[in-house]
Amino acid sequence: MIGSMPVDARTLLHELTKEARDLDIGNTVARVSASQLTSLVFYRDFVSRNKPVVITGAIDHWPALQSWTMNYITERMGEAKISVARTPHGRADSVVRLDGSQYFALPEEEQMPVQEFFTSLCRENSGEVIYAQAQNNSLPEEFGPLLKEVADLEWATLAFGTNPEATNLWIGGDDSMTSFHKDHYENMYAVVKGRKVFTLLPPSDAYRLYFQTCTVAQYRRNATGKLHLEPEEPSRGLPWATVDPYPPSDEQMEASKLAHPEYWDPDLPPPLQVVVGPGEVLYLPSLWFHHVRQEARADVCVIAVNFWYEMAFDCKAAYAKLADQLAAELHSNSHAN
Amino acid sequence: MIGSMPVDARTLLHELTKEARDLDIGNTVARVSASQLTSLVFYRDFVSRNKPVVITGAIDHWPALQSWTMNYITERMGEAKISVARTPHGRADSVVRLDGSQYFALPEEEQMPVQEFFTSLCRENSGEVIYAQAQNNSLPEEFGPLLKEVADLEWATLAFGTNPEATNLWIGGDDSMTSFHKDHYENMYAVVKGRKVFTLLPPSDAYRLYFQTCTVAQYRRNATGKLHLEPEEPSRGLPWATVDPYPPSDEQMEASKLAHPEYWDPDLPPPLQVVVGPGEVLYLPSLWFHHVRQEARADVCVIAVNFWYEMAFDCKAAYAKLADQLAAELHSNSHAN
Repeated sequence: MIGSMPVDARTLLHELTKEARDLDIGNTVARVSASQLTSLVFYRDFVSRNKPVVITGAIDHWPALQSWTMNYITERMGEAKISVARTPHGRADSVVRLDGSQYFALPEEEQMPVQEFFTSLCRENSGEVIYAQAQNNSLPEEFGPLLKEVADLEWATLAFGTNPEATNLWIGGDDSMTSFHKDHYENMYAVVKGRKVFTLLPPSDAYRLYFQTCTVAQYRRNATGKLHLEPEEPSRGLPWATVDPYPPSDEQMEASKLAHPEYWDPDLPPPLQVVVGPGEVLYLPSLWFHHVRQEARADVCVIAVNFWYEMAFDCKAAYAKLADQLAAELHSNSHAN
Repeated sequence: MIGSMPVDARTLLHELTKEARDLDIGNTVARVSASQLTSLVFYRDFVSRNKPVVITGAIDHWPALQSWTMNYITERMGEAKISVARTPHGRADSVVRLDGSQYFALPEEEQMPVQEFFTSLCRENSGEVIYAQAQNNSLPEEFGPLLKEVADLEWATLAFGTNPEATNLWIGGDDSMTSFHKDHYENMYAVVKGRKVFTLLPPSDAYRLYFQTCTVAQYRRNATGKLHLEPEEPSRGLPWATVDPYPPSDEQMEASKLAHPEYWDPDLPPPLQVVVGPGEVLYLPSLWFHHVRQEARADVCVIAVNFWYEMAFDCKAAYAKLADQLAAELHSNSHAN
């Protein structure tokens, strides 16, 4: 039996990236009107192809689009407490470099009434950033009083053939950012207020995100009341994407271009960027890597509702695993050399 | 810039094979009743997953199921001529080894009235095998008088969102065999008479078929009237699968196990085999490798109608290309060592 067959993983992965884009994905996310979409057409043209799309006019009937001001939500929610994530910088669940180590930084978690949450959100220069980002079916679990202001996406439920596994509400300001990650769900992401900026790469492009094992740590208050990063005990490692697509300084951009050349390579198709505004729904396909920013502007906060549907674990999932394996080979050998 | 990164193509491909089977494909082709299938369910559960299925009860209304005897077809077709493929052995469009060379053997092509075709088919020990296998939209093009005996698969057309690109009629006996190949179409394959035996491998398993470049040749009659294989001029090479899943002798089986170990490897999932009988429709997904045999028995010939629908050139096609490239790497290195 013959042993290792050398293969040029970089060439294969670059060709895969380009082939997928040239054949189908393209470089921009299409927009379609809900009136042009039946469940079958949605499934055939997008879900089956694992291809994102923004659907307009699908949630025009949601009372939330008109009613969800901070005052209204505060009034409806009363004293009910919600889960809030807190970090010094707005980058919960992301890679933080500290003292020469690379951490996966979990946020501090607390419960607070909505009024306190909004007050804090409006406060400038607080030195801390809060985000309502609980992903535990938070819409019915924590925001029950708001449930009747939104409605199920019946045509999506019909298409997927199953009810959503979870429905979550997200409220955050411009300082909050969600780092690159993927979910084992089909995701219908509806924006109610403000704008969400998604930066996307398909599953084939795992190698461009430079996954590395990071030490899991959590933000906690120290004795002086300041947030600091505490490594978990016992120590735990978690592979996470180390690319920041929006380096906050020129120096960090230059550093990223050196450390993460496949992400920035001008010969490769760029990540897809799509802005999703009020009343719009992004179909974010299973296993797509996504980075999320907010653009609240005068709205102060961005409010969104997402529906997670069970994904089909089919050949596309098997191929995504192959892409992950080729990525790991590519980068482990880079380090070896 | 770092060069080639060593990667074990064999390990990656074996894992891909097993993952795809374990996640979704399994080891047998499912059977579902047409009454349980809407266009959406068909697309979601099978087409989207690039997964074969046999549908029963979908063509019960075809008059052909009752009327298509050889006499009836002969009467309806009159003097009209059909395209017939002829070989010494029934293996048209397959790899033939002759005088130490490997050929891709095209059949001799001729036109003959249906009555002559059926008479030849019924004749035993003729030393030649004929098969009506023209794939040029032959049902309307050559068998027009039979068109009203069958009907479109409306639910499939709805599902694919497009009319078939071609509809073909196939008539052949037990000696005819179609070698492993793939088509860039979605295929709905309806059996009217007799049984078809399909041996299937998904696109990920290209490496198990040992594609090699063969010299294209065609059977022609020589001066003594015997069929012989004539290489094309100018010489042309065509990559084709060299595995015969049904070696006709013990020696050839042993030789195949040595030459094509990945095909026969007991640690890998076996190719899927499915028998499609009268009134049944096989959904044969795009890019799946398929080998086809006939089981006519008392029926003398097997008659089938297939509908080719345009496939979606999406990420699944990009991944299939990657699987082909890894297969080529694996086998080129095998030869180098």
